[in-house]
Amino acid sequence: MGTKLRVAVLGAGRIGRLHIGHLSQRIPGVVVTVVADVIAAAAEKCAADFSIPSVSNDPLRVISDPNVDAVIICSSTDTHADLIIAAAKAKKQIFCEKPIALGLDRIDAALDAVDKAGVKLQIGFNRRFDSNYRRVHDLIREGAIGDLHILKITSRDPSPPPIEYVKVSGGLFLDMMIHDFDMARYLTGSEVEEVYAVGAVRVDPAIGKAGDIDTAAVTLKFANGVIGTIDNSRKAVYGYDQRVEAFGSRGMADTANRRPNEVRIYGGTEVKEDLPLNFFVERYTESYIRELTEFVECVTANRTPPVTGLDGRMPVAIGYAAKRSYEEHRPVALAEIR
Amino acid sequence: MGTKLRVAVLGAGRIGRLHIGHLSQRIPGVVVTVVADVIAAAAEKCAADFSIPSVSNDPLRVISDPNVDAVIICSSTDTHADLIIAAAKAKKQIFCEKPIALGLDRIDAALDAVDKAGVKLQIGFNRRFDSNYRRVHDLIREGAIGDLHILKITSRDPSPPPIEYVKVSGGLFLDMMIHDFDMARYLTGSEVEEVYAVGAVRVDPAIGKAGDIDTAAVTLKFANGVIGTIDNSRKAVYGYDQRVEAFGSRGMADTANRRPNEVRIYGGTEVKEDLPLNFFVERYTESYIRELTEFVECVTANRTPPVTGLDGRMPVAIGYAAKRSYEEHRPVALAEIR
Amino acid sequence: MGTKLRVAVLGAGRIGRLHIGHLSQRIPGVVVTVVADVIAAAAEKCAADFSIPSVSNDPLRVISDPNVDAVIICSSTDTHADLIIAAAKAKKQIFCEKPIALGLDRIDAALDAVDKAGVKLQIGFNRRFDSNYRRVHDLIREGAIGDLHILKITSRDPSPPPIEYVKVSGGLFLDMMIHDFDMARYLTGSEVEEVYAVGAVRVDPAIGKAGDIDTAAVTLKFANGVIGTIDNSRKAVYGYDQRVEAFGSRGMADTANRRPNEVRIYGGTEVKEDLPLNFFVERYTESYIRELTEFVECVTANRTPPVTGLDGRMPVAIGYAAKRSYEEHRPVALAEIR
Amino acid sequence: MGTKLRVAVLGAGRIGRLHIGHLSQRIPGVVVTVVADVIAAAAEKCAADFSIPSVSNDPLRVISDPNVDAVIICSSTDTHADLIIAAAKAKKQIFCEKPIALGLDRIDAALDAVDKAGVKLQIGFNRRFDSNYRRVHDLIREGAIGDLHILKITSRDPSPPPIEYVKVSGGLFLDMMIHDFDMARYLTGSEVEEVYAVGAVRVDPAIGKAGDIDTAAVTLKFANGVIGTIDNSRKAVYGYDQRVEAFGSRGMADTANRRPNEVRIYGGTEVKEDLPLNFFVERYTESYIRELTEFVECVTANRTPPVTGLDGRMPVAIGYAAKRSYEEHRPVALAEIR
Repeated sequence: MGTKLRVAVLGAGRIGRLHIGHLSQRIPGVVVTVVADVIAAAAEKCAADFSIPSVSNDPLRVISDPNVDAVIICSSTDTHADLIIAAAKAKKQIFCEKPIALGLDRIDAALDAVDKAGVKLQIGFNRRFDSNYRRVHDLIREGAIGDLHILKITSRDPSPPPIEYVKVSGGLFLDMMIHDFDMARYLTGSEVEEVYAVGAVRVDPAIGKAGDIDTAAVTLKFANGVIGTIDNSRKAVYGYDQRVEAFGSRGMADTANRRPNEVRIYGGTEVKEDLPLNFFVERYTESYIRELTEFVECVTANRTPPVTGLDGRMPVAIGYAAKRSYEEHRPVALAEIR
Repeated sequence: MGTKLRVAVLGAGRIGRLHIGHLSQRIPGVVVTVVADVIAAAAEKCAADFSIPSVSNDPLRVISDPNVDAVIICSSTDTHADLIIAAAKAKKQIFCEKPIALGLDRIDAALDAVDKAGVKLQIGFNRRFDSNYRRVHDLIREGAIGDLHILKITSRDPSPPPIEYVKVSGGLFLDMMIHDFDMARYLTGSEVEEVYAVGAVRVDPAIGKAGDIDTAAVTLKFANGVIGTIDNSRKAVYGYDQRVEAFGSRGMADTANRRPNEVRIYGGTEVKEDLPLNFFVERYTESYIRELTEFVECVTANRTPPVTGLDGRMPVAIGYAAKRSYEEHRPVALAEIR
Repeated sequence: MGTKLRVAVLGAGRIGRLHIGHLSQRIPGVVVTVVADVIAAAAEKCAADFSIPSVSNDPLRVISDPNVDAVIICSSTDTHADLIIAAAKAKKQIFCEKPIALGLDRIDAALDAVDKAGVKLQIGFNRRFDSNYRRVHDLIREGAIGDLHILKITSRDPSPPPIEYVKVSGGLFLDMMIHDFDMARYLTGSEVEEVYAVGAVRVDPAIGKAGDIDTAAVTLKFANGVIGTIDNSRKAVYGYDQRVEAFGSRGMADTANRRPNEVRIYGGTEVKEDLPLNFFVERYTESYIRELTEFVECVTANRTPPVTGLDGRMPVAIGYAAKRSYEEHRPVALAEIR
Repeated sequence: MGTKLRVAVLGAGRIGRLHIGHLSQRIPGVVVTVVADVIAAAAEKCAADFSIPSVSNDPLRVISDPNVDAVIICSSTDTHADLIIAAAKAKKQIFCEKPIALGLDRIDAALDAVDKAGVKLQIGFNRRFDSNYRRVHDLIREGAIGDLHILKITSRDPSPPPIEYVKVSGGLFLDMMIHDFDMARYLTGSEVEEVYAVGAVRVDPAIGKAGDIDTAAVTLKFANGVIGTIDNSRKAVYGYDQRVEAFGSRGMADTANRRPNEVRIYGGTEVKEDLPLNFFVERYTESYIRELTEFVECVTANRTPPVTGLDGRMPVAIGYAAKRSYEEHRPVALAEIR
C-alpha cells in the first residue's frame, strides 16, 4: 500500500457519486483510482467530474486489480454479496452500502467469506456518524441518562421513492426502517429480542398495490430490558424528519432536526422558521464523510471498522421479524428468524 | 337555581381541595355551598380555608340537599359510581373525577342512571382543557395537518406514587395511561380498535412486587386508520413530561413541556434551562379551572358537557385491553372487552 | 388591623380593576373594603362585579376612613403625589402605580411625606415580579454569570396608545421606557450615571406631531461599570416583546417571550408557532398578583416593601436624562438632572 | 485564462491556509498555482500540505507572474494596500482580506489603483455569506419585515487575542467591530450617518494598558432612518456569539448561534445543550467557502464582486468615527471623518 489508500468505487449511481465526491475532496489519505459501473456512461461521467484516472464497466475485474487496496460497494443491493465475496477472496478491504443482501443466507455467505479472508468489512450505516446520534450514543455510554428505559426513534422521508423502486425494495421494514433498527442497536448497545409491527397505507394507494406499506410503528424489546418504538412514514411534507429520544433512570436526551439556518421570523400572525434540511444528502453529508474517513483510518491503522458485518446482518433479521409480525399480526421473537 | 350555581364538593382530599380553591376564587357563576368528606376533619379544614358555609361527613345526605344544584365528585374511585347514581336520582348535575369506576359494569350502571335521570355528567379528564392539547386538537380538526396518520403521546410522572396506592390503583394502564387513552380519543376523534402493550419494571422493584409495572409502551389502531403510540414511565427525574406529536398528510403539530420561565443560561461548559413544571398541579392548573368553568357554563346554559359519560367509559375499556394485551402477550381487539 | 388587611383602591380604571380582581380572588390576607373613583359609575361597576361593600367618588375621604389600613393608588398620574401625601398623613400604608409623578419636586414632596409619617410605600413596577426577570436577577446576584458587563433590554408594545394619551403621557422615555429604566436598576443593582438617547418617529407620524417619538435606543453607563442598552418601539406587530440579556464574565442569561402554548406546527413551507402573549395583562398577570401579594405580606409582617420610593424616583430622573440627551443630542450625566 | 482560474495566495498564515484548503478542495473552477509568504517556511508547508506546485517568499514577484490570473491577499494588514496597488497595475483580479488598510488615505490609494486598472476587487467580509445573515438580509430586501426600524448586532469572541496582537490591531473598533459595521451596512442597505460609542476594560486590564478596550456598545444612525446598536466583548466564556435582530414595521427576524448538534439533555436539576460553535473557523467555514466561490464566479463570468472596495472602505471610516466618539465622549457624524 502506498502513502494513500487506493480505492475502487463499484457503482456510480447516486450514492456512489456522493462517496466519490467526498473521497476525492474531503477525506485525507485516500485516492479513488478507479470507478466501475455496469452502465459505462455513469462511470465515465464520475471519472470525468472527479478526475479519476481509470474507468470500468466490470466491477469484478476491478476487484482483482493489484493497484486497488479497498473497494467501496455502492452498486444495486442484489450484487452486494457477490462483490463482497469476490473482494474478500482478492484480499481487498471492503466498505459496503447497506443492506448486505435481502436474504440472510446470502449475508451469511458474504460474512463467512470476509471472515475466512481476514479482511475488514464496514457497512454503510452512516447515521451512526451523525453528530446528533453520536452525541446521544456517547451520553448513554457515559451514563449521563442512567439506565436506558425507553428509546424512541422517528424517521420520515420527505417523499416516497418511485413505485418501481418500491416494488423491488424489499418493503418498508427492510428498505427504510432498517436504518432505524441499526440506530436502535447502536444506541441501546443491546440486541432486539422481540418485534411487534403495525403498518398502513396512508400516503399513496399505489404503494399498497405494490404490496408494501408507507406508514408503520414498531415496538421492540431488547435483551437489556429497554423498550423501543420506531415510527416511519414515506412522506413528511415538512422534509426529512430524523429524531431520537432516549429516556433513562437519570434523565433524557433528545435531538431536533437540523435546519439550514437559525433564523426566526416574527410576523403579524405567527412566528416562523424555515423547514429542516430536506433529505439525506443535505442532512447526512457530514456523516457520510465521517464514515468513510473512519473506514480509511481503520484500514490504514489496521483497526476494526466501527460498523461490522454483524451490524449489517442484524437489522435485516429484525426487518424480517417486523415483516412477519405485520403479516401475522402478533409479536415475533428474533429467535424465530432462521 | 339561583343566580349562581350551587355546588357540593364530595371529597376533600387533594383533588377536592384543588377544585374547591378554583370554584371559590377563579370560576364565575358558581358557589360552593357545602363540602362533604367521610373524614370530617378534611371537610372542615376546606370549609374553613375557603369560607364554605356548610360541612358534612355524609356525601349521600348532601346529594339530597335541595339547595344543591350540582355535585363535584372527588372522593375515592370506589365510591364514584354510587354517588353518580344517587346524584342522578336526586336530579343533580354531576361532575365526576376519572375513572367513573374500575369495573365496566359499574360504569354502565352509573351511565344508565344518568341517562334515565336526564342530568348532565362531565368526567374530569382535565388535560383536554390544556392550552397545548386543545391547540393540537383544533389544528387537527381545522385540517391544518391534513389526515392524521400517526399520533404519539408521551406521559411520564416525576416520581411514582406510594406503594400502598399502587396496590389499589388498578395498575398503570388503568391509573396512569387512562389519561393518555382519553387524550388519544380526543385528538384522533376516533375509537380505538386494537391495543398492543409492552411493559416492564424498571423504576422500582417494589412496584413489580405489588403486581404492577412502571414503564410501558402501547400501540393503538384506530377506526379511522390512525396509528397511535403511548409511552409511560412512573419516574422522569426531570419532572412531569407531557407531550404529544400529531403527524398527518399535510404536516405535524407537536408540543413541548411548559417551563416555569423562559430563561436560558450560557456558561463555560453548557447552555442550561430550568426544568419543566414538576407535576400536574403546576402544569394543569389552568386546565382544571377551564374544565370546571365549562361544566358550570354547560349546566347554566343547558348544553352537553365537553367530556361525556362515554368519554369516561372508553378509556377504562382501553385500559383493560392494554392490560390483557400485556398479560397475554398479543394484540387485543377492543371488541374482546365485554 | 383585623385578621385581613383592609385596603381601599383609589381609581377604578383598567389597572385599578385589574388589581381589584387579584386582591379579591387571588391574594390571601387582604380584603378590598372600598373602591373610589371620581367617576362614580366606574367605582360602582367594580364594586358590583367584585362584591366590594363600599363605594366612593372621593378618594381623599376614603383615605381618612378608619376602617382602611392601606390604599392602592391607581388613579391618573397627576393625582398620585397628592394621594400619597394625604395617605401618609392619615398613616395609611401605600401602594402606588408608577410613576409617582412626572415632576421630580412632586416626587420628592411625596417621598418626604412618606418618610415623615413612617408608613410603607411600594411602587408598582410589576415587572420585577415576573418569573423571567426575577430569575435573571437572582442568577446575577448568585454570581452565575460572574461580573455583569453588558445588559440589554428590549421592550416593544403591540400597538401605540391613543394619540390623546400620547399627548399627556410625558413622552416615550417617561411613559414607556421608565419600566426599562427600573428593570435596568433592578438587574444591575447599580445606579445609572450617564444616558445617551436616540429616537425617531417611525410607527406613526401623528405621534411626531404630538411632540413624541415612537422608536428609541438608549445607552446607559452604570456606577458599577456595566454598559446598558435599551430599545423601545410603540408597535411590534407580533405582540408584546419583553426580553433581557445579561452578559457577564462567567456567562450570559437571556429570556424569551412567553407564549400562549408550546405547540409547533410543521407544514409544507415552514415551521410555525403562535405569537407571544399579546400585551401586559396576559404577560404580566402573575407579576401583578405577586407584587400585591408581597405588598400585603410586607405590611402585615412590617417589612420594607420590595420596590421603594427611591425606586419610584430614579427611573423618572433617568427618563429626564434620556429626554434631554435626545433633545440636546449628547450624553447626559444623571448628576445634571436637578 | 485557462479553464480554471489560476490564483496566487499571498500570505500563508492562519487565514491564508484556511483559504488555500477551501480553494484546493471545496471550490470548483479554481486552482492555486502558487503560495507566497515572506516567511518561506510557512509558504512551503502550505504548498506541501495542499500539493501547490510553486512557492515564493516574494509576493510582489508572484503578482507579476503571467500564469496568475488572480491574487488572494491574506498577508498582514499593513501590506494589503501595496499588494492591491501592485496587483491592479499587473491587471490581476483581487480578493483581499479586511481591512484594506488602517489609514483611509491608503485605502483610497488602493481603490484608485483598482479603478484605474479596471480590475475586480472583493473584500473578505465573509459573514455576508453566512446562511443566517444572508437569510435575514434577503428577508429585509423582500419586505418580509416591512421597513426596518431597529437593527441590533451582537458580536463576542470566545477569548481575547494575545496582547501583542492587541497593540497593533488598531483597537477594538477597527479590528473587531469592523465586521459588525460591515454587517450593519449589508443588512440596512444604507450608510451610517452618526456614531456614538461607549467602551470599557472589563475582560483584562492588560488590554487597557495596551491602550485598547475589550467591551463596547455603539449606537448608529443610518441615512434611511434605521437605528442600529452593536455590542462587542472580547470574551464570552460560552463561545463565539454572533447574532442579529432586525425589527421592522411588519415583523422581526432574528438569528441564534449555530450549535455542534441539536441534542438536549434533561437531567435531575436542569436541561442542557452543548455550547455554540466556538470560533470563526467552525462557525464561518461555509461562509469562507461561499465568498471565494462567488469571487471565482464573478471573475470568471465578469460580474461585479459582491463585496466591493467601497464596502471595504466604509467600515474603516465608521470605525474611526466610533473611536473618536469614544475618545471625545460625544456622537460623531461620519461626515467628520476626513
